[in-house]
Amino acid sequence: MCGIIGYTGYNYAQNILLEGLSQLEYRGYDSAGIALLTKDNQISVHKCTGRVASLIDLCSLDEVDSCCGVGHTRWATHGGVTKQNAHPHTCGKVSLIHNGIIENYYEIIEEYHLADKLVSETDTEVVAALLDTLYESDPIVAIKETVSKLNGSFAFCIMFTDQPGLIYSIRNVSPLVAALAKSGSYIASDLTALIPYSKEYFIVPEYHIITLSKTDITIQDLNGKFILPEILTVNWDIEAAMKNGYPHFMLKEIFEQPDAIHKTIAPRIKNMLPDFTDDSIPNSLFLNCTKLSIVACGTAMHAGMVAKTMIEPLLRVPVTVSIASEFRYEEPLIDKNTLVITVSQSGETIDTLEALRLAKRLHGRTISIVNVKGSSIARESDYVLYTHAGPEIAVASTKAYTVQLAALYLLGCKAALVNDCYSVTQANQFIKNLIDVTDNVKLLLEHTELIQSVAKYLTGATDAFFIGRGLDYTLSLEGALKLKEISYIHAEAYAAGELKHGTIALISEGTPVVALATQTKVYSKVISNIREVKARGAYVILLSCDESITDSSICNLHIPLPKTDDLFTVFESAVVLQLIAYYTSANKGLDVDKPRNLAKSVTVE
Amino acid sequence: MCGIIGYTGYNYAQNILLEGLSQLEYRGYDSAGIALLTKDNQISVHKCTGRVASLIDLCSLDEVDSCCGVGHTRWATHGGVTKQNAHPHTCGKVSLIHNGIIENYYEIIEEYHLADKLVSETDTEVVAALLDTLYESDPIVAIKETVSKLNGSFAFCIMFTDQPGLIYSIRNVSPLVAALAKSGSYIASDLTALIPYSKEYFIVPEYHIITLSKTDITIQDLNGKFILPEILTVNWDIEAAMKNGYPHFMLKEIFEQPDAIHKTIAPRIKNMLPDFTDDSIPNSLFLNCTKLSIVACGTAMHAGMVAKTMIEPLLRVPVTVSIASEFRYEEPLIDKNTLVITVSQSGETIDTLEALRLAKRLHGRTISIVNVKGSSIARESDYVLYTHAGPEIAVASTKAYTVQLAALYLLGCKAALVNDCYSVTQANQFIKNLIDVTDNVKLLLEHTELIQSVAKYLTGATDAFFIGRGLDYTLSLEGALKLKEISYIHAEAYAAGELKHGTIALISEGTPVVALATQTKVYSKVISNIREVKARGAYVILLSCDESITDSSICNLHIPLPKTDDLFTVFESAVVLQLIAYYTSANKGLDVDKPRNLAKSVTVE
Repeated sequence: MCGIIGYTGYNYAQNILLEGLSQLEYRGYDSAGIALLTKDNQISVHKCTGRVASLIDLCSLDEVDSCCGVGHTRWATHGGVTKQNAHPHTCGKVSLIHNGIIENYYEIIEEYHLADKLVSETDTEVVAALLDTLYESDPIVAIKETVSKLNGSFAFCIMFTDQPGLIYSIRNVSPLVAALAKSGSYIASDLTALIPYSKEYFIVPEYHIITLSKTDITIQDLNGKFILPEILTVNWDIEAAMKNGYPHFMLKEIFEQPDAIHKTIAPRIKNMLPDFTDDSIPNSLFLNCTKLSIVACGTAMHAGMVAKTMIEPLLRVPVTVSIASEFRYEEPLIDKNTLVITVSQSGETIDTLEALRLAKRLHGRTISIVNVKGSSIARESDYVLYTHAGPEIAVASTKAYTVQLAALYLLGCKAALVNDCYSVTQANQFIKNLIDVTDNVKLLLEHTELIQSVAKYLTGATDAFFIGRGLDYTLSLEGALKLKEISYIHAEAYAAGELKHGTIALISEGTPVVALATQTKVYSKVISNIREVKARGAYVILLSCDESITDSSICNLHIPLPKTDDLFTVFESAVVLQLIAYYTSANKGLDVDKPRNLAKSVTVE
Repeated sequence: MCGIIGYTGYNYAQNILLEGLSQLEYRGYDSAGIALLTKDNQISVHKCTGRVASLIDLCSLDEVDSCCGVGHTRWATHGGVTKQNAHPHTCGKVSLIHNGIIENYYEIIEEYHLADKLVSETDTEVVAALLDTLYESDPIVAIKETVSKLNGSFAFCIMFTDQPGLIYSIRNVSPLVAALAKSGSYIASDLTALIPYSKEYFIVPEYHIITLSKTDITIQDLNGKFILPEILTVNWDIEAAMKNGYPHFMLKEIFEQPDAIHKTIAPRIKNMLPDFTDDSIPNSLFLNCTKLSIVACGTAMHAGMVAKTMIEPLLRVPVTVSIASEFRYEEPLIDKNTLVITVSQSGETIDTLEALRLAKRLHGRTISIVNVKGSSIARESDYVLYTHAGPEIAVASTKAYTVQLAALYLLGCKAALVNDCYSVTQANQFIKNLIDVTDNVKLLLEHTELIQSVAKYLTGATDAFFIGRGLDYTLSLEGALKLKEISYIHAEAYAAGELKHGTIALISEGTPVVALATQTKVYSKVISNIREVKARGAYVILLSCDESITDSSICNLHIPLPKTDDLFTVFESAVVLQLIAYYTSANKGLDVDKPRNLAKSVTVE
């Protein structure tokens, strides 16, 4: 979280920084700020709480004549959302911006007696103060010494008042990319801010000091050895990041799902069988696996839960799903016969990245399912199965989730085939079902009126419950999260049979319960559970493939799903649950694409 | 759920039934009712929604001269909480009460054209109507035929107007116990209702027809063969089920924890090592285990989560925790080298019982951790490790949870020792720490003022979050459930690092967050997560062993815990979380011991 941008070159920096921050705003929008190094070696800082739009208004009153500066959009960690806590932070000759968390900031204040120098509550300002204390005349020496004192994760962009036209940068874990163009040098948290200026870029290596000038970018390691960067080329279409007439990115992205799923699966299907040749993933990866370990966070972790429920009975080997932030500090049972699958849209989720590194140290076989080419997790995994969702801009993930599911389904089918758990005929049928998903989802998207009426009911709710059994339970976790994220309704998912062990106490007259009942084997059991909540006055919204719910005592609203194999209803249900969340948030007049407190890619722990 | 009682004998039945229902009320309190067979062969029914106390008021207006009757207290499943849906249900010559769920009741209505006979929305009344349809003159024949048509679980007590002084009964899965005394014959859902009349009782075998008369109880199987019951003796002290001056059972049970833990562990410690000789559990049970599978529901499942986090790194074999209602319908990976541990206070939790049966069919080794002697789960497991919490009356489980933890800790230590994962010295230290738990918990219970002030803050809240990492996370699940159950505050637990992947959107000014930070390894990480929510305005209540939280920006209220080994802080934290829930509920003036919608032992799916 937090978005960082730096520019030094031939053009006015202010507009470039503000435009970049607009692109990066999805990374955090608690506050925003820029610092410009003026031609008379002064630092000019503008910052404010709230959105980048407010910062733009503020800056329009005072256009600064400068071609060198840094900008920041904040997702608050240390210290509340105040102007004082907004970046950039300035101390003496030093101005800097930061993404990450410095864990030992308190000890540093004590050791270097910095308390008097500080005006904010942030960990970041402590680094500015330390750097100013250690700085004599050589920025490289001061940066090296400062960084050696820090515990935590960071990406810094730093300016010194006596180093005109220069921006220094260093990172550990938190992401940074940089590009050299004719108009100058650019550095940012991610590509979206660089695309307007350059199609070529490089990923800033960790623990190297970067020096940007208007004509050049140099990279040196901590021993002073200079290295050349590995230049990559952007493969995104900038048009794809526009709204195309939809009121929100989220709605556009929900409607892109049939296409995104098609793009993800089509290149990996040959003769109606899964084929990973073009991904350079050998069949041997799936042989002699005694365990599959799926590690991820948030929505991606929920995709993993679906995959576990689908894959474990198929392969008859244990499949575990771990929250990455927990996995990292456990002592996980990983060995060379464990296939560790990390899932992340951005490929930069810090806990997932660190979990991957741990899995590699333990000699696990690693494969990642990632949407962003060249991202850290993709680069560090043994193998990658890229999803082809295209850029996802809305903070609440939709299409990235369903393509993760599609990729995991392909992977499960492949592993089953390689291990003789599926015959060719069975795999053919599985692939046929998977191909059919795109048409089923398209069909659903044609009629959203019923879903909009569900959303109308939810708009007045403060709490909601999502229940299901088996695959439906794993999906209800994602349905509840989606509603939480963007509508601020306290939604919670439960295995349908578990609700009565306590949580049913929260059900009273009119409490909305979204019940998923798509799994034939447990259909009658879920219906019994629905009756239990109905008897307490719940307002039940039922998703099922049963066209004719004859007994009106079961639910208040029924959303019928296209009939399909039990394993594949998750795709349909997922889309319905996304739309329920979307329309509820839109009805409430909330900022659907940028919900409060959240950020798109979670790069702090 | 639902409580059942039947009596036929020499005394007035009405008072006996009402007293029995008061004892059984914890099993459900949506409605209550009794049916009496009068001396002129009429059925007299009284029923009402709400508590047994209301039924007692109602009956006091009309004392019926009868020595034979049945009574029922309902936890609603099919059909809302109305007088019409209350049991007993009467149709023609038949009156009956039921605990369980008949899944195919709708098909039966259609097949036998029963719709015109029905006045309620319940599955139960359908059985009364079917039985009346099939009844000619022989109750046994009609009951056999009726039962052969039913899918689901049930315990029935049945009276026929032309069978004076007789009560018939049959069960599948749902529990029933019976006793013959000088004063007559008694049958009930559990022992608490029988204790005043007899210390000797028997467990009603499944799919046998029981006939109660005032002098005799007969048992015949479905082929008409009579069998003799296995007589058991009650070992409970009736005094233990009284409040002893506490305002609520829950508070009494919280304060009984040091004693309950002591009673559970002391008999199993010899030479400062775990010893299961008196439980007849051989060391071989723990040898060559390739997997541990813990299966339970609700609070017991949360105890399993703690145990997994404690045991897996110790034994270095996979430990899974399954929700019993999910496990039953998965195809779980269980074999002869899997140790399946089922956990249940009552030993009657139906999903856990069925999970146990499935595990046995798959040849798993089974051990159960159960509080009630002779309960179904205890009887059907290969081995039992009884907890000695004594009777737990409050619906929200407290002491049963901590003794489950204590038993699981002993089991983990034993398995580690048997498998050479612990040296004798290490096991000695572990046992010493476990023994110290009772004193630490006692210490905590001496000063509850700070906890009461936390509860004061929570009293005004509608939502709350509980966060932690590792063992603290598993415990926060139970903390949130406790608060939910009895205060109706929508509390939810999160792995501290996972909150920012969506749920942090629900945090706004003043939202209470209970943060557990007792685990040294991840202490600084949790503190970072606390700052993230604090920056969004959360009101943070911190539990930690850190006596001097120097930085006041971390939390609004700090509850210091006695210092102890990281593995053993869970016992202390558990007690604090229970007290937070208790005082919040009591402050709100709610019925702490009998929260709405809940029942003590969950005997429906």
